[in-house]
Amino acid sequence: MVNPIDPTATGFLLAENRNMPMHVGGLQLFEKPEGAGRNYVREMYEQMRDVEQIAPLFLKHPHRSARTAGQLVWQPDDQFDIEHHVRHSALPRPGRIRELLELCSRLHSTRLAWERPLWEATVIEGLRDGRVAMYTKTHHALVDGVSAMRLLASVLSTDPDERNMPAPWAMRPRAPREEAPGRDDGGASLSDVSATTVRTALALATEAAGMPGALIRTLNKSVRNETSALSLYAPRTILNQNITGSRRFAAQDWPVERLRGVGKATGTTINDVVLAMVSGAMRTYLADLDALPDTTLVSMVPVGLNAKQSGLASAEGGNAVGSVMVQLGTHLPDPAQRLSAIHTSMKDGKEVLSSMTPAQILAMSALGQAPAILGPALRMSGVVRPPYNLIVSNVPGPRTTHYWNGAKLTGTYPLSIPINGMALNITCTSYDGKMCFGLTGCRRTVPHLQVLLQYLDDELKALERAAGI
Amino acid sequence: MVNPIDPTATGFLLAENRNMPMHVGGLQLFEKPEGAGRNYVREMYEQMRDVEQIAPLFLKHPHRSARTAGQLVWQPDDQFDIEHHVRHSALPRPGRIRELLELCSRLHSTRLAWERPLWEATVIEGLRDGRVAMYTKTHHALVDGVSAMRLLASVLSTDPDERNMPAPWAMRPRAPREEAPGRDDGGASLSDVSATTVRTALALATEAAGMPGALIRTLNKSVRNETSALSLYAPRTILNQNITGSRRFAAQDWPVERLRGVGKATGTTINDVVLAMVSGAMRTYLADLDALPDTTLVSMVPVGLNAKQSGLASAEGGNAVGSVMVQLGTHLPDPAQRLSAIHTSMKDGKEVLSSMTPAQILAMSALGQAPAILGPALRMSGVVRPPYNLIVSNVPGPRTTHYWNGAKLTGTYPLSIPINGMALNITCTSYDGKMCFGLTGCRRTVPHLQVLLQYLDDELKALERAAGI
Repeated sequence: MVNPIDPTATGFLLAENRNMPMHVGGLQLFEKPEGAGRNYVREMYEQMRDVEQIAPLFLKHPHRSARTAGQLVWQPDDQFDIEHHVRHSALPRPGRIRELLELCSRLHSTRLAWERPLWEATVIEGLRDGRVAMYTKTHHALVDGVSAMRLLASVLSTDPDERNMPAPWAMRPRAPREEAPGRDDGGASLSDVSATTVRTALALATEAAGMPGALIRTLNKSVRNETSALSLYAPRTILNQNITGSRRFAAQDWPVERLRGVGKATGTTINDVVLAMVSGAMRTYLADLDALPDTTLVSMVPVGLNAKQSGLASAEGGNAVGSVMVQLGTHLPDPAQRLSAIHTSMKDGKEVLSSMTPAQILAMSALGQAPAILGPALRMSGVVRPPYNLIVSNVPGPRTTHYWNGAKLTGTYPLSIPINGMALNITCTSYDGKMCFGLTGCRRTVPHLQVLLQYLDDELKALERAAGI
Repeated sequence: MVNPIDPTATGFLLAENRNMPMHVGGLQLFEKPEGAGRNYVREMYEQMRDVEQIAPLFLKHPHRSARTAGQLVWQPDDQFDIEHHVRHSALPRPGRIRELLELCSRLHSTRLAWERPLWEATVIEGLRDGRVAMYTKTHHALVDGVSAMRLLASVLSTDPDERNMPAPWAMRPRAPREEAPGRDDGGASLSDVSATTVRTALALATEAAGMPGALIRTLNKSVRNETSALSLYAPRTILNQNITGSRRFAAQDWPVERLRGVGKATGTTINDVVLAMVSGAMRTYLADLDALPDTTLVSMVPVGLNAKQSGLASAEGGNAVGSVMVQLGTHLPDPAQRLSAIHTSMKDGKEVLSSMTPAQILAMSALGQAPAILGPALRMSGVVRPPYNLIVSNVPGPRTTHYWNGAKLTGTYPLSIPINGMALNITCTSYDGKMCFGLTGCRRTVPHLQVLLQYLDDELKALERAAGI
């Protein structure tokens, strides 16, 4: 009944402390179906709670004792209490998105207790626009952020009339659902998700943390000789400090069509436009605080690699991820110039990535990705400045409208893991024609995080103007 | 900056596990003042949160490391985050007391993380009757249940027009407040409360756990020869099993006048009537479950001792507590007979208590009070049956109407600590002419706990009929 915990997951558990809870989150917004009764949200909560059988992933918790010789093992929770994990809550008035984000910030700030299975879900009512929200929280030792979002999506249907649909934590048959999202991973059953967990960002780093120091040093040296797109020499900013355990979450979406419009008019990609929005917003934000560095901010951007390219064991299904260090051009006053600089930097980075061996990609990604975990190794190599300033991920999601038991999903926003030295994480996911941004930061290190939403909006408008739209 | 933790508090910390969180709680209900605006609850929350200086009791957390030689010490939280501790929440619709009790049950089920100061408070809106609730949670290592309730009361005023009143966790001047509750402890400042913490129930037991085994065995023997009111031989019931970490809380109040009426007509005390209500309710409840023992249930009832009588170091101000084992007469079908049996049993118990030495009282109370902690010692002495079946406490509170910044307190209900072998705890407190019952149980061991509220009501009516009222 006891299972060993793999080294990567163990790494996440051991790296965790009060200031760095290691869980990812998701915020989903649903519209009630036509004719929903007064008790609709309660019934939705009860459907989420009253699950016949819970999938094993959601029943195990980490355990360490003399009997396990001090090793962390997974143990089934023999007193599993679904009411601890699936919750029904409501927003204080006036029930704006602001109150919702405050609640998510608070829920995301609290560590999951190891003595119970490492997940929680909260069905939230009281939004004044009548929508229903669901915040979910899963430890990175179980799934990473991308897998967590896909797991949530995997129970949805494109059919608004379908009913009796399972909760994400319910045990499901292995066969792919016909109505699953129209993407290669959409039909993945829960067991698939847990088996082929996509090792992004932090996961790669923890895997690489076990690599011989000499290899890391060698790679480090070679990376320093690469193009500036791979620079490990980002400027010091307020984002690159030790963090506290207080989180602030901000989220908003913009029509993908608007980003595509800017991309078409300027010969750049949607992802470039996402990065340009972030660049302009960060420039304004840091200037407000009189903390804008003279040189450009560098963003770590995970990019997808196909399985052959990556050669990683965890890369089944083409989901492996390498990373590119993108110069955001925050020192440039002109939005069009920033977008152009980002486009060039991203292109250079991807070219370099394609010329590297899988082991190099792994080690380079690791070097860049986890100053908190690899910090000592980096300092040994004489690297003392932050390798990059923030993480911006963009994960494609379902393109069509999806439903859960008739409730229409109107938006889905990821909550990520800030770590020491990396106080802000921006993760975007596309859904049904929207680009949904989720900004997760340490509340103390990144003050007034929510103003970034306004600055992102301002920047998209500025880019449209610059592109002549 | 580091302070040792006293042995009693250490006992509570070490006894704690996932199934036995060692925190006490309080639920307070307030009526908004006349002319309260739409944002009243938010403003109340902000007043609770935006405290100039937090009292030291609420800033420290337990810490253990190599530097402290493995000993638990109190350490100030150098990243104290008030937003983690003071929260603003809302009830799902329809916002009945039922939804409030569900939320309190959930909040009370979750352990406080040692890595932060050991308390939380949640300001709760969304009750359909327009009232505002506050649930507070404090670790027993900081204060016991009685002190916690008094601490909450100590910031209140009898003046509905007073404003700028402090939150319970705010640093306050030592001088007693003129407007404080009209009771001997009412004016206690926070520092008083923490210094003279009243060691009730569990606390006495942990203190006694350090006593020599021979003394315990001797006392145990002598106790067995005492009157049946002190029996350590309660019947086995479903209440006397190991518990899980799931809590259910139920609360309701009845006019003290009704209890006094029954007492006057029958020559019994208000406390006897409280116990008779519990007795009748437990009889019906256990009979429903086909689990009513043939012999009477025994309740542990803490009783106040004056300082001279108790001679306990912690008994400053006459707050020390001994305990009496009261036979509840649950085997008797007649309500009047049950009340009469309780009256006799209580009287016998108090007489025996008054004839005992302070050390005997301490040891006897300890023997009775903590099977979870003293279990091994008791088994060594050949005592294998539960010493009693449940705990019923009755703590007097303020007799007049009190306010917090104009909000009228309409009721205050204690949440207690179930432990292994003692799955149900009933604590009552009187306030402003009401007897407020708080029932805290393990949700799995004590199913449908909330029906006890109906049975308590039924029993009070039956007692009134029996008394000819």
